[in-house]
Amino acid sequence: MAAGRALPLLLLLLEPVAAVWPQPQAERTPAGGGRCLLPPRRFRFAYAAGSAVGPGCAVLEAAFQRYWALLFAAARPTEKELPWGIPCTQLLVFVATPGCNGFPSLDSKESCLETFSQLVGRDENGTYYINKTEIVDFPRFRHRGLLLDTSRHYLPLRAILETLDVMAYNKFNVFHWHIVDDPSFPYESMTFPELSKQGAFNAMTHVYTASDVQTVIEYARMRGIRVIAEFDTPGHTLSWGPGAPGLLTPCYLDKDPSGTYGPINPILNSTYQFVTSLFKEVSTVFPDFFLHLGGDEVDFTCWKSNPKIRAFMRKMGFGEDYKKLESFYIQRLLDIISSLGKGYIVWQEVFDNGVKVRPDTIIHVWKENPKPYMEEMANVTKAGYRALLSAPWYLNRISYGQDWMAAYQVEPLKFGGSPEQKDRVIGGEACMWGEYVDVTNLAPRLWPRAGAVAERLWSNATVRDLQDAYVRLADFRCKLLGRGVQAQPLYVGYCENEFPGF
Amino acid sequence: MAAGRALPLLLLLLEPVAAVWPQPQAERTPAGGGRCLLPPRRFRFAYAAGSAVGPGCAVLEAAFQRYWALLFAAARPTEKELPWGIPCTQLLVFVATPGCNGFPSLDSKESCLETFSQLVGRDENGTYYINKTEIVDFPRFRHRGLLLDTSRHYLPLRAILETLDVMAYNKFNVFHWHIVDDPSFPYESMTFPELSKQGAFNAMTHVYTASDVQTVIEYARMRGIRVIAEFDTPGHTLSWGPGAPGLLTPCYLDKDPSGTYGPINPILNSTYQFVTSLFKEVSTVFPDFFLHLGGDEVDFTCWKSNPKIRAFMRKMGFGEDYKKLESFYIQRLLDIISSLGKGYIVWQEVFDNGVKVRPDTIIHVWKENPKPYMEEMANVTKAGYRALLSAPWYLNRISYGQDWMAAYQVEPLKFGGSPEQKDRVIGGEACMWGEYVDVTNLAPRLWPRAGAVAERLWSNATVRDLQDAYVRLADFRCKLLGRGVQAQPLYVGYCENEFPGF
Repeated sequence: MAAGRALPLLLLLLEPVAAVWPQPQAERTPAGGGRCLLPPRRFRFAYAAGSAVGPGCAVLEAAFQRYWALLFAAARPTEKELPWGIPCTQLLVFVATPGCNGFPSLDSKESCLETFSQLVGRDENGTYYINKTEIVDFPRFRHRGLLLDTSRHYLPLRAILETLDVMAYNKFNVFHWHIVDDPSFPYESMTFPELSKQGAFNAMTHVYTASDVQTVIEYARMRGIRVIAEFDTPGHTLSWGPGAPGLLTPCYLDKDPSGTYGPINPILNSTYQFVTSLFKEVSTVFPDFFLHLGGDEVDFTCWKSNPKIRAFMRKMGFGEDYKKLESFYIQRLLDIISSLGKGYIVWQEVFDNGVKVRPDTIIHVWKENPKPYMEEMANVTKAGYRALLSAPWYLNRISYGQDWMAAYQVEPLKFGGSPEQKDRVIGGEACMWGEYVDVTNLAPRLWPRAGAVAERLWSNATVRDLQDAYVRLADFRCKLLGRGVQAQPLYVGYCENEFPGF
Repeated sequence: MAAGRALPLLLLLLEPVAAVWPQPQAERTPAGGGRCLLPPRRFRFAYAAGSAVGPGCAVLEAAFQRYWALLFAAARPTEKELPWGIPCTQLLVFVATPGCNGFPSLDSKESCLETFSQLVGRDENGTYYINKTEIVDFPRFRHRGLLLDTSRHYLPLRAILETLDVMAYNKFNVFHWHIVDDPSFPYESMTFPELSKQGAFNAMTHVYTASDVQTVIEYARMRGIRVIAEFDTPGHTLSWGPGAPGLLTPCYLDKDPSGTYGPINPILNSTYQFVTSLFKEVSTVFPDFFLHLGGDEVDFTCWKSNPKIRAFMRKMGFGEDYKKLESFYIQRLLDIISSLGKGYIVWQEVFDNGVKVRPDTIIHVWKENPKPYMEEMANVTKAGYRALLSAPWYLNRISYGQDWMAAYQVEPLKFGGSPEQKDRVIGGEACMWGEYVDVTNLAPRLWPRAGAVAERLWSNATVRDLQDAYVRLADFRCKLLGRGVQAQPLYVGYCENEFPGF
């Protein structure tokens, strides 16, 4: 949305290079250094001469507003601004490519305002300043995602919007919305309203209305964040059952239906009619080119118990290989999605099971065994597909101590393969699955831990020093507290402004 | 503070026995059952005939106010109360022993209002009711504590007060305030104001003033909670150094002081003068009979490096056994505390090192190795001392999944010993050390996990069924959310009223 790649971001004034998280590709204090003061009431964001985007660009105007408030909201308005020093009264933003009101995409450029905001300091007199700093910046990976799971626990809209804010502070640019799953179906479908009426924890309070979804998408867009919705099938769909009679496979106990249900029933035409209608709606609601189709962890027990499924297996010549049945379903689903003009991301099982996917498919690597995830990354990219890494970044899995370090030390390209293969790694996602997480503990579990993933995906591969990262991340976490984010501490210590929200 | 042991708590009305956490000693629905409705505007707490305590008892009056608000704050005042059903318009509280305005002690009786509040339900019309339930209740252990560490991170007063509220909901009755330690000294001493001025993270914002401390003690008293302060010495005192020149041992590098400091210097008279003055103040400020004196984890490296300490060791005939030096210090400290008329609790090292302690000393068992903690419990009680268990209840140590279960399954008396030994186990404490915890994540890490310890210390030893505990604890956690406590989920699911605070 703003400054293009490899553009000098700032030429402003300071002594030590200020800590920025995630670390820019290049940052230095120019010879001679220097500092200039920022007088809040006179300071403005503005467009540089020759910028392809100018006044009237809603995304930038809104960002200017947000960052002015983040920077100077604490300034006392009655305070007399000091006349001394060299004042800097504007930040000139230069945007290389035109276009302002579209949605962000895999190829979107990045904003510089967050970096700028992190460089602004405040001295002991309350005077804002910025030290002269030269920054050249661009992300290492294009897809820097965060997954939230709103099925195992419902997350109120406000928690999602707050997460989007903090994602932007971390330069995450993809919100992977794992919106439905076995435990609940909070997505309110216009085509199939019974899905949430029957499948939400509470159809009055625990649903995302069409308006909620639009709010999330728009809020994300204003922050340069894409929203990729996941409707995981054919497994992970138990909550779909009550609102979609006939969709799920009836499980059998000996010769009779047991009353329980398994994955989506892949042998009925009605299933594909349903799936077509639902995804037609979903494709319209979510503007991003990509949908996440899931495809993970299909349990074959129920399919195996069902005599009609077994008959179908025989008819199709699948033998006892239920992976073939799974692939049969996925194949048809992918064709439906293609016909809707959408691209797709799938969990790695779809690739592992040899489903024929389009060449532009993105394979999402999440499993740590039986084979190491780096082997999977090598296989996926060798087969010519693009890959997204999440396996080492399941942040829901907590442990005692500074577990951000393990996430930070991951190197996504540390596998054997050609340069072309490495190019196919478009990024990764931090995942916060919801078994043990809801709005009560989401923010402190995410932040600043997810920041470790954010820097790994943004900064240069050479940025790996743990001690340096600790200092910057602890500082960034203090900045987050100052912005009202309930980010937990890395270790013993304190922040000067640590209780604004409490 | 209220109804005595083994007193029938309630004789009121319902169908299934309502879930209460921690589980009462006996709870049953009487034959015939029955339910009565509670009309909020007419409902009152009152004193039963013959109660040793009546109107004017501040502790009870305040509890009546709190629980009326907890129960009925959500009642719509304009709503017409239903005339049908059998109304219950008062809860009669009978207190067996007189005395109302003192501080709680190890022998205090317990309150019944929390139990009552958990039995009240609300039907789909918003009508409050209580089902007829007979409860006989009393705690299994007298000391049911929770430790908070305000040195590794400062906890704002508000967070401590909120914790006291939730402790009362869980029937915890001891707040173990680990108020100072190596990283910071937030206690504002009247005798030695430089301690916090020099030792707090920030002397303006990160201190507990005398008024703050009084507020904590009074807030706790109103909830039947004792406040036991810990001033841990001779180790864990680095933050004391800047404000108390000469108190800490100067460490040496070869023949010269290295500029760093170790534990309190045990060989100087000035040390004991300082300790006497400080604990004289602390004994006055904290009304509880017991002080916690620490005594754990003394690192001998610095003492060993110091030539004056080594000379003292030789003079005293301690050889190379620095435990003797530690004991020398502790012995003098204990004598000082005794002379101040206080009892003391010490960490297990003091017992392990063979320090001569008073027979009424309480030994706090916290180590998991080298010997199993149950062996230590056996040894401590065999030696005739009272024991407090914390080793399996370090709740700061988190792991993925339902780790409350391990805390719940502990049986504090599962060691070989006589009945007299078992009687010497006065209870235990859940500990929330502050390395990775501050106000941003305190509440969700504590609750409902600490509830597992609360029930273990309150309920009968036979109450051990994990499935049953899960259901009741999940329900209790929903009640906590309804009261505005940021208690994290046990597992997948939801509460009807889960977003009041968000």
